[in-house]
Amino acid sequence: MASTAGKVIKCKAAVAWEAGKPLVIEEVEVAPPQAMEVRIKILYTALCHTDVFFWEAKGQNPVFPRIFGHEAGGIVESVGEGVTEFAPGDHVLPVFTGECKECTHCKSEESNMCDLLRINTDRGVMIGDGQSRFSINGKPIFHFVGTSTFSEYTVIHVGCVVKINPEAPLDKVCILSCGISTGLGAILNVAKPPKGSTVAIFGLGAVGLAAAEGARLAGASRIIGVDLNPNRFELARKFGCTEFVNPKDHTKPVQEVLAEMTNGGVDRSVECTGNINAMIQAFECVHDGWGVAVLVGVPNKDAEFKTHPMNFLNERTLKGTFFGNYKPRTDLPSVVEKYMTGVSSYLVS
Amino acid sequence: MASTAGKVIKCKAAVAWEAGKPLVIEEVEVAPPQAMEVRIKILYTALCHTDVFFWEAKGQNPVFPRIFGHEAGGIVESVGEGVTEFAPGDHVLPVFTGECKECTHCKSEESNMCDLLRINTDRGVMIGDGQSRFSINGKPIFHFVGTSTFSEYTVIHVGCVVKINPEAPLDKVCILSCGISTGLGAILNVAKPPKGSTVAIFGLGAVGLAAAEGARLAGASRIIGVDLNPNRFELARKFGCTEFVNPKDHTKPVQEVLAEMTNGGVDRSVECTGNINAMIQAFECVHDGWGVAVLVGVPNKDAEFKTHPMNFLNERTLKGTFFGNYKPRTDLPSVVEKYMTGVSSYLVS
Repeated sequence: MASTAGKVIKCKAAVAWEAGKPLVIEEVEVAPPQAMEVRIKILYTALCHTDVFFWEAKGQNPVFPRIFGHEAGGIVESVGEGVTEFAPGDHVLPVFTGECKECTHCKSEESNMCDLLRINTDRGVMIGDGQSRFSINGKPIFHFVGTSTFSEYTVIHVGCVVKINPEAPLDKVCILSCGISTGLGAILNVAKPPKGSTVAIFGLGAVGLAAAEGARLAGASRIIGVDLNPNRFELARKFGCTEFVNPKDHTKPVQEVLAEMTNGGVDRSVECTGNINAMIQAFECVHDGWGVAVLVGVPNKDAEFKTHPMNFLNERTLKGTFFGNYKPRTDLPSVVEKYMTGVSSYLVS
Repeated sequence: MASTAGKVIKCKAAVAWEAGKPLVIEEVEVAPPQAMEVRIKILYTALCHTDVFFWEAKGQNPVFPRIFGHEAGGIVESVGEGVTEFAPGDHVLPVFTGECKECTHCKSEESNMCDLLRINTDRGVMIGDGQSRFSINGKPIFHFVGTSTFSEYTVIHVGCVVKINPEAPLDKVCILSCGISTGLGAILNVAKPPKGSTVAIFGLGAVGLAAAEGARLAGASRIIGVDLNPNRFELARKFGCTEFVNPKDHTKPVQEVLAEMTNGGVDRSVECTGNINAMIQAFECVHDGWGVAVLVGVPNKDAEFKTHPMNFLNERTLKGTFFGNYKPRTDLPSVVEKYMTGVSSYLVS
């Protein structure tokens, strides 16, 4: 097979021409990677609600035509100038947020909110030259969060690409590039429940299930799933949930229900819905003296978090996390290894 | 001198007969300590704003007649049944909140909010038998937060008494039993600023000054004092503040002023006023990715903490603390030692 390096590649992509309109499979031209960029052959891609959210573009800045997609796995096809960390054939996960390894965030032990490559949902072009690498008949098609994985080939900044164990099955580990790591990291990196502790998980979607799995891995003895949809409870039990609360089954506020179940409050809680009331409940349900609540779900623009400040003064902690506080390039390979060694096999099966 | 153990002691005390009325020096009778109680000769006592707050009793439950006072130092006169940890002659600090060493809070490494002896401003009697140890002509005079140090002798539950180094000057270290430890602990035990970090202190009263001293001890390189009263700045400089912001000098919100001074936000902030707006500012002025804000000041009953939840999701942390997270009996002796070794000599000079 003749090398495609340095050449424009023609391939199929699912193009969103307008907000809310069905994606259309088109033939697109994918330009070669420029300095500090990598061109990747996408083998598997998942659909995340965030793709849908920005495709609907209700209240968001509409950036169209655009190629969505950010939970994916693929193989490096070619690399641009200055790229030394990757070579054609490397197995990689694209990530919607990056790690430049140079800024104060990347140099901080705590933050993963890279100044240069932090998620930017409004930008539809490459950060290097402000251009798109996708086009149809010369007309640019915009990128999405720097990944645009709904294409057979895509071009990504080197800081948003993670090299992983080539033995890892890309069809499975592709989903580690977004929601699973977000939920798992919220527990393992941020909430850090001690062994034997009690954890409440608000929202049992993919992120919440990953959080439950994280709590199980951390050795929590009670993992209470909270969801309005009882159909989710059976699956959540496989991920580690030991009991469930459906707020609809109770007349009193769910934070009171949880406090009664746990002698004053849970040790840790994680909010995975983005609903502002669930955020307040998740905070107020943790035990005074030591409870830690972690916010994961993305709220509406006009949401307001409200609580009585005594809830803090009674020694509760409230934190938020972004992508589970994982630094993508530094930390994701170890999450893939967790899967490979079977530690968290439920996550991706 | 004949022993007074087991006998009623007649002594002087400052009695608050009614809310807001001047205290009256009266001769009171102080009953002997009962089981798990200690009778203490108070040598020095300070006045804390909390005494004034409950003496005014605006909105608080009025409990009168009452003997206020809780920042103090003294010497054990006698001990009640079952007390093995103290003996007459021991130098002690009474503390308004206790440590039973048996409850889940006392057994937690993180909490100091003892279930049994946590501060209770409504209770005017001993926890053992529900009676007061103070009386005038047979009429009971109520206790305040279990300490009532505006009396030459007082009776205190053993869990609210801290034995300290007898070499420590009680006239100085008496103030470690409340505000100073609260501010110092908020920094050293809760905010934990890394060396070289930037810390903002909201409110430069005694608690805020102690927080500044804590930040200096922790090795913070910039300590920014925030206060509406510029007359406090000179003294605060001695406690470690390196720069100052008076919100009155600026038209933009103080969190924006601080963000501009610090390339995006301070690493740590501590709120020592109890004003709800200052609490919100103290939270919103910390850097995304790693900033930690700690609430110390006690808010009004109807205060509401409000912020956009994205401020959390951008990896900021908000915590509250009570008495600087110090466990009184376990931890205060080491704070006294800090003074004795000159580490924090400004605090009590």
